Amino acid sequence: MYIVGVDLGGTEIKTGLVSKDKGIIKKVALPTEAHLGQEKVVENIVETIKMVSEGVENKIEAIGIGSPGSIDRDHGIVRYSPNLPFNNFELAHHISEKVKVPTFVENDANAFTLGEWYFGSAQGMKHFVALTLGTGIGGGVVSHGILITGRDGIGAELGHVIVDPDGPLCGCGSRGCIEAIASARNTARWAKEFSVKIPENKVVELAGGIDKIESKHVFEALKSGDYVAKLVVEKVTDALARAIANYVHIFNPELIVIGGGMSKAGNALIKPIEEKISLYIMPSFRGTFKILPSALVEDAGILGASAAAMYHTR
Amino acid sequence: MYIVGVDLGGTEIKTGLVSKDKGIIKKVALPTEAHLGQEKVVENIVETIKMVSEGVENKIEAIGIGSPGSIDRDHGIVRYSPNLPFNNFELAHHISEKVKVPTFVENDANAFTLGEWYFGSAQGMKHFVALTLGTGIGGGVVSHGILITGRDGIGAELGHVIVDPDGPLCGCGSRGCIEAIASARNTARWAKEFSVKIPENKVVELAGGIDKIESKHVFEALKSGDYVAKLVVEKVTDALARAIANYVHIFNPELIVIGGGMSKAGNALIKPIEEKISLYIMPSFRGTFKILPSALVEDAGILGASAAAMYHTR
Repeated sequence: MYIVGVDLGGTEIKTGLVSKDKGIIKKVALPTEAHLGQEKVVENIVETIKMVSEGVENKIEAIGIGSPGSIDRDHGIVRYSPNLPFNNFELAHHISEKVKVPTFVENDANAFTLGEWYFGSAQGMKHFVALTLGTGIGGGVVSHGILITGRDGIGAELGHVIVDPDGPLCGCGSRGCIEAIASARNTARWAKEFSVKIPENKVVELAGGIDKIESKHVFEALKSGDYVAKLVVEKVTDALARAIANYVHIFNPELIVIGGGMSKAGNALIKPIEEKISLYIMPSFRGTFKILPSALVEDAGILGASAAAMYHTR
Repeated sequence: MYIVGVDLGGTEIKTGLVSKDKGIIKKVALPTEAHLGQEKVVENIVETIKMVSEGVENKIEAIGIGSPGSIDRDHGIVRYSPNLPFNNFELAHHISEKVKVPTFVENDANAFTLGEWYFGSAQGMKHFVALTLGTGIGGGVVSHGILITGRDGIGAELGHVIVDPDGPLCGCGSRGCIEAIASARNTARWAKEFSVKIPENKVVELAGGIDKIESKHVFEALKSGDYVAKLVVEKVTDALARAIANYVHIFNPELIVIGGGMSKAGNALIKPIEEKISLYIMPSFRGTFKILPSALVEDAGILGASAAAMYHTR
């Protein structure tokens, strides 16, 4: 038996045929064509599902869709999603009606978390925290073997834990949320800001101009000991260490797994967090947890979506 | 059938006979006599249990003990407790051996949380957060109907969520933990500090001297609009609002219940937190939760200990 995992993005739909034991068997991608409206997007999703299921149509147990935005997982509804033409749209219903397979929708951060649980670094664990460092910071928590979503299903907003009351303004309206300091986008923003004062630096050089700086250029420049890169990484990892100390004190997890684009920096990101976090955790928590980058990389979306279907049918 | 709840403190043991439906039927108190060693403390605990059980000895289903300090609840062991002569002491075993009733030990913050769940403001809820504002700040969380304790049982350290990286040094070694800013002890400390600069104020007057200031004097002085009291309450409730916003973003609870000595201030404490928290929460969380003071007051310890026995035998 198989699961189909659909990683629904604003520009691309990546869909995979997934075996619980063997992971991804086959995968395809199609443009989302969000500008053509909800019917066209549904059509494209269904098309990818048909492509990966060819020949095993009767062996598909469930379909999982990982979607950005605010999701009502109990009813398979996308409440809203900034880059998709869905507004209180019964996505699961529309897909399952066409494909005749039970369909589940989960927000992408929780899907990532479940993907790490079923296929990644957190396999077999009952207590772990997952963070995705991308444009924003998403999060998910498994505690006592349960995905923590809260009363209305909107919990685990780990990116909006406030770590500095005087920190930068966040998109959510607060100041000093960890997202406002340490997302990939804000990591790039610090580098841009610092480069205005110190224009001769390796980050700008690698990016080919201040405006083109992305977080990856910061970590690349760090390798040659660039001063601006160091300042940025110092700032970002210090805030992450404080946020993670909070999650550790609250959940007493055995793992914090970090995904999203910025996790590709690997040890350049993880090591400084590990060093700083010992300043922020209580002595009784020393040695109780690990911090690891996601092992799923490009497949995290498809595997996460599949894992969401697996979790909700367990 | 009944439960016996033992509220074990450094100076006093308060024990009650508790009915699941009717609450406390009978209660007694004896000095702990911690200075006389562990055997004497055990003897005193057993004595209180016998006193409340008289006549219904055969109807006691379980005994719950709420103890300060670090508790191994799975084995009923007090790992250590600052004001008790217990060091990796098998407290549950020693009590159950003498009384022949299953005995459970839980730390006082979690016991308080469970007490609110079974007997207090959180009855019937699956998602709530409990905070005790005393000498320190303790916490407990029920999420998805489960008490969150983490892999090693040491989670829910809500008092050590860092809300200000430049805040005061905390007993745990970090800076700016909510405990270091907003516990009852630190509320008194701010008032003492401010009173050095502004000695003519109502807080000092009510306390009868700077050194005698307690948090209750701050809230008492607030009633007459005292300037120093206002400054202190502003500082403390702002930090609490930020910490609670973090718990709300993480757990999406329907209630935050506040206990401990300082909760006796009631609305003088709750109202300013409610006002400030709207600055710190994401719009999607508006109206999803309430903040209430504990309704159990003096009986919170006994009811919490009983609830711990009920939870662990459920």
